[in-house]
Amino acid sequence: MDDRDLLESIIDLVGDRARDDCAVLPMGDVILVATTDMLHTKTDFLEGMTDWQCGWMAIAVTLSDIASMGAAPRYILLAVGLDRSERLRPLMEGAKACCDRYGAELVGGDIDSHDELTLVSTGLGTVEPAHLVRRRGSRAGDLVCVTGVLGRAQAAIEGYARYRKFLFEPQPRVTEGQILGRNGATSMMDISDGLALSLFDLTLANPCGYRITSAMIPVIEDIQYEKALEFALYGGGDYELLFTIPGEKLPLDGMTYHVIGHVVGEPGAFLNGMPMERRGYQHRWKELS
Amino acid sequence: MDDRDLLESIIDLVGDRARDDCAVLPMGDVILVATTDMLHTKTDFLEGMTDWQCGWMAIAVTLSDIASMGAAPRYILLAVGLDRSERLRPLMEGAKACCDRYGAELVGGDIDSHDELTLVSTGLGTVEPAHLVRRRGSRAGDLVCVTGVLGRAQAAIEGYARYRKFLFEPQPRVTEGQILGRNGATSMMDISDGLALSLFDLTLANPCGYRITSAMIPVIEDIQYEKALEFALYGGGDYELLFTIPGEKLPLDGMTYHVIGHVVGEPGAFLNGMPMERRGYQHRWKELS
Repeated sequence: MDDRDLLESIIDLVGDRARDDCAVLPMGDVILVATTDMLHTKTDFLEGMTDWQCGWMAIAVTLSDIASMGAAPRYILLAVGLDRSERLRPLMEGAKACCDRYGAELVGGDIDSHDELTLVSTGLGTVEPAHLVRRRGSRAGDLVCVTGVLGRAQAAIEGYARYRKFLFEPQPRVTEGQILGRNGATSMMDISDGLALSLFDLTLANPCGYRITSAMIPVIEDIQYEKALEFALYGGGDYELLFTIPGEKLPLDGMTYHVIGHVVGEPGAFLNGMPMERRGYQHRWKELS
Repeated sequence: MDDRDLLESIIDLVGDRARDDCAVLPMGDVILVATTDMLHTKTDFLEGMTDWQCGWMAIAVTLSDIASMGAAPRYILLAVGLDRSERLRPLMEGAKACCDRYGAELVGGDIDSHDELTLVSTGLGTVEPAHLVRRRGSRAGDLVCVTGVLGRAQAAIEGYARYRKFLFEPQPRVTEGQILGRNGATSMMDISDGLALSLFDLTLANPCGYRITSAMIPVIEDIQYEKALEFALYGGGDYELLFTIPGEKLPLDGMTYHVIGHVVGEPGAFLNGMPMERRGYQHRWKELS
């Protein structure tokens, strides 16, 4: 059982909207989007990361969720489960730096003692109702696109040290998300668990299918191509945006992106015309029952 | 070093407002209040608690923070660090039950694997600007009051099993907080770490002092009085509200409360005319440096 299966097992309690990257909360004339993310040493903070980078990452993943709704980040709360008190200051400095970089305000949190360093960041963003983008909304005929280059974080995990900065200090696509919201993206999510899994997530939220072409995927170019493609499709940690958009809305100014395929009526995720493998970065539990 | 000292060590990064129970975020015509709380097995979930109760408690502590601002709870996000997957459903059912009981909506969250069960709930509430109550705002001459009876949760910790329900399923003062906001409370906080520590927290936020009288403190009545008073002053886990209010605003309809003292010009916290001991329930870290 993975984290997606677990979510499905309680979807009756939290409602369908929990499938989006953020909860969508109408608040007067604007929409508030809200998201929370737990990161901790064993599954998220890799060897070699500084405390500053752990703090940065905790904020970055949350800003990425906000970006994927087309929203502007506003406020961040950070709960810190702290194994050693001297880690607090560099952690908070990294968190603050990431907030400052992307125009969010660190407004509160909680500090607790914990055997394992555990950071939970909660982000609030705002967006005009007309500019909100969700996972649901793809239409047959739309183009499928991604920001950035995929697989860089996974390359770092696999030992390519020159890509370490992409893994340790992810740069959420805050500007890009808002440009996409204002310019007619029909559906969007971030691809932190790999492109393949993200496409499957889109198939869960939409009645249509996604056909992508491997040659169109932007991969890193200084390693063997098959490996680079594997990292892009099935690797984790990238925090790029995956979105669909009608072709007539392109080109988009102010951001870089790549068209990698198109939306079709037939449900499913397809790579070069073949059903895609459903695998990627996922948390897993041992079954006890 | 305790959690209050740690907060002070990073207050330059998060700002003064982190000293309140919630961050105060203007949002159009209303004020949004936001708070996050981390609970985990070792420091918060006691032996004998069911998973349902752990889920309930995670929400209750957050609703208590919202109540202490005079705000109405609106939305809850719950991040779950899960040691065993079969715990998820009862945890979420307890969380949902607490949300339902107090009119909050469980709108999202995160699920992660973790060696130690760790729940982080984030709550959003709304309040009219005129009805917002903060820790700062006490005025000399105000009365000092508390809701409920103090020390019941600590009695349960000390083995009085008949008080266990107060410890395991805290009932946040959601209605009372809003009544107090609408009726002129000048400062407020919840007293989850004991009455004494909470009074010291008020002294940090206000330029005045607090004089309380032990005979006026509502304590449990079926155990030895000295013990009951000790639990009320220095015990943890109660989630009652401590507030100040001008005498002319009393009596308050629709809630029970006790006047336990008054606000004075001289800074400090005083019990029966003597400086109060600064102790209570606090998370502590071993110093490594």
